[in-house]
Amino acid sequence: MTDADAKVEGETKTEEETKPEEKQDEEKPPKEMRAVILNGFGGLKSVKIVKRPEPVLADGEVLVRVQLCGVSFQDVMVRQGVTESPPKTPFILGFECAGIIEALADDVENFKVGDRVVGLPDHRAWAELVPVNAKYVYPIPETIAIQEAAAVTLSYTVAYLLVHDLANVSSGQSVLLHSAGGAVGQAVCTLLQDIGDVTVLGVASKNKHEDIKESVTHLIDRGGDIPAEVKKVCPDGVDVVFDCQGGEECSRGYALLRPLGRYILFGSSNIITGETKSILSVVKSWWQVDKVSPLRLYEENKGIIGFNLRRLLHHQPGGHERVREVIQTVYNLWQKGVAKAHIDSTYALEDITEAMTKLHERKNIGKLLLDLSMEPKPKPVTPAKSKKEEKKEEKEEKEEDDKANEVTKNNAKNEKEEESKAEEKEK
Amino acid sequence: MTDADAKVEGETKTEEETKPEEKQDEEKPPKEMRAVILNGFGGLKSVKIVKRPEPVLADGEVLVRVQLCGVSFQDVMVRQGVTESPPKTPFILGFECAGIIEALADDVENFKVGDRVVGLPDHRAWAELVPVNAKYVYPIPETIAIQEAAAVTLSYTVAYLLVHDLANVSSGQSVLLHSAGGAVGQAVCTLLQDIGDVTVLGVASKNKHEDIKESVTHLIDRGGDIPAEVKKVCPDGVDVVFDCQGGEECSRGYALLRPLGRYILFGSSNIITGETKSILSVVKSWWQVDKVSPLRLYEENKGIIGFNLRRLLHHQPGGHERVREVIQTVYNLWQKGVAKAHIDSTYALEDITEAMTKLHERKNIGKLLLDLSMEPKPKPVTPAKSKKEEKKEEKEEKEEDDKANEVTKNNAKNEKEEESKAEEKEK
Repeated sequence: MTDADAKVEGETKTEEETKPEEKQDEEKPPKEMRAVILNGFGGLKSVKIVKRPEPVLADGEVLVRVQLCGVSFQDVMVRQGVTESPPKTPFILGFECAGIIEALADDVENFKVGDRVVGLPDHRAWAELVPVNAKYVYPIPETIAIQEAAAVTLSYTVAYLLVHDLANVSSGQSVLLHSAGGAVGQAVCTLLQDIGDVTVLGVASKNKHEDIKESVTHLIDRGGDIPAEVKKVCPDGVDVVFDCQGGEECSRGYALLRPLGRYILFGSSNIITGETKSILSVVKSWWQVDKVSPLRLYEENKGIIGFNLRRLLHHQPGGHERVREVIQTVYNLWQKGVAKAHIDSTYALEDITEAMTKLHERKNIGKLLLDLSMEPKPKPVTPAKSKKEEKKEEKEEKEEDDKANEVTKNNAKNEKEEESKAEEKEK
Repeated sequence: MTDADAKVEGETKTEEETKPEEKQDEEKPPKEMRAVILNGFGGLKSVKIVKRPEPVLADGEVLVRVQLCGVSFQDVMVRQGVTESPPKTPFILGFECAGIIEALADDVENFKVGDRVVGLPDHRAWAELVPVNAKYVYPIPETIAIQEAAAVTLSYTVAYLLVHDLANVSSGQSVLLHSAGGAVGQAVCTLLQDIGDVTVLGVASKNKHEDIKESVTHLIDRGGDIPAEVKKVCPDGVDVVFDCQGGEECSRGYALLRPLGRYILFGSSNIITGETKSILSVVKSWWQVDKVSPLRLYEENKGIIGFNLRRLLHHQPGGHERVREVIQTVYNLWQKGVAKAHIDSTYALEDITEAMTKLHERKNIGKLLLDLSMEPKPKPVTPAKSKKEEKKEEKEEKEEDDKANEVTKNNAKNEKEEESKAEEKEK
């Protein structure tokens, strides 16, 4: 599982020379590191913990010796192959890491070896050593523990942009918040409490209600009749809807806005149903979203706003500069005691699939972290497999991966076609 | 022109009894007032200054002895019959008046006879006496002259809602502002200057540039290549577009947004071309507006927001309460020296068509007011008409009005049909 895999990965740079005598010392391979890779888009079996050659720095990058990684719903979506333009498999998963700078490219300023930082690369964050372009590296203030920073940085950055830059929530207003129990949801709740006198209608699975009841004004069951529940509290509708579900929630959310209200779409998690991608749910999440005419918004005094941090940070001009400012603000809020880490649980790197399952099943309250110093949980003892059985399993896995990749390609093609057809129709 | 006309108007309440001897005293008719009425949707000839019976108060209303009226582009649109659900003609035009309270219905609190107020009724504001529901009446602070209040109230209320409630403009951002020379445009400029360090790209007709150059950072010619001019100053686009034109400006404005930018549509003045409604421009202003998918906004990190003060104030829950708060804020800003009256010119009631023409031709810089104490301008002397000529002109006018009304009806019908067809298509 070491050398063969290492060579598959296309994006790692030149493999450094290793002396033959070191290779024999299996206990302490000096130039390898652990990483979580995705072998093919699909289910949990596509996710593997492997040894990889240590990365080499490119211009503009810092090398982070990672202590903690953040896991979010987006990682589940990447695994299933339902995000936009992911890398070719196999690649290292993950968008968030925190640790110590081990090396810097010559052209990197403002950082030094030993700095404690958070890195937000575009994939490839879940490894012991991660090269990150300095544009996406943020120094952690002295007073904040690395674990806190790992839990706070991304969630509060998204929450801050949503609450302040986009929704511009003020005292006396009302907010409908989907996934109130998630890490971003809990961060949004905290920021809204800081504004004061905001009515927060939080949607969460029934089993989370007891734990998050302090953070919202009214709890709504994820499985219930959300519009009816909202209307009970706010008969004229709400000022803001924060929706990370997408699909049919878009029209529902829009309809629940009162005049001057704004609907903010910041995710499309209801594209995810089973463990692997369902073409139907992908297509549904697309066609359930009604297009809206600006004239209707003019008539109804409403607004629709989209927010996508990954696109903003990595693919749009001015994005990373604004994110850096917001992260600074978030750390200031932490120091003032406003921003708080909401950690659900911490896993060893090897237990990543367990973390993903918890997210997928929407059982987490707050942030899930990977701690690279943690020992993996003991695996349940299973009867020893015969060589034949092992071979069979490997073959099935391979077929599953291939199928998943094929589906991904076809879907992407179909969606593109559907989209251009629809655009044609619009014209 | 007096009695006959008075009886035509449907919405005035029971005509008070007038003694026969008073009727003979033509110099000082005690129970009549001057008003600007619209006889039928169409051109300037449909607008008449007539004598009307003094209105009687209904529950919840105050009677305002009007001194000044505001004229805005919306009045031109009402005249042409291109606004949503206007009253049946004939009716008194106008949305803004300022004066002294002359009487109150028994159930009205918080006001007393003699109070100086601004009234923002839904039509019927251009008369010597105007009954306004107290919900839409705003006391003018002692330190503000009635003329200032008449010029400031509506423009700054719209501007404040646009800049602060909806666009949430902050220092360091850039704004593209259409109709920068208009009353609302100038108010927006003032509020943006008050925020500080906002790059304002103001679109205005060339002839206004000299007069408004202090209020914007960059001037753009209304007739020029606006996107190219914007890109010169802001290559990545602007944070905010304030568009009161609509039509094809919608897509153009949207395309000029940088990530996290928001396009705000607050009018559709490019529905207006000639003096009377052009069906083509009505249809164009509708089909030129592309519908947008929330998924696209999510992808592009952009927002689209609609704003329509009349709908908010008169037809939507919570609207008049928010407007009242904003008007209070605007008066506070006036007292701090931030809000300033931008008055282009003041006309006698009888010269209303001149004011409308100036608006239509987009020649005003700032607010147009009607002053009910002003003498009308002397009319150019024309050779005396024969009785026959007069009769002929009257007949032509009547035909024109009828035609305009017919066109309005048909258009409304066609638009409805087009709309439902398109909606059908969407489904």
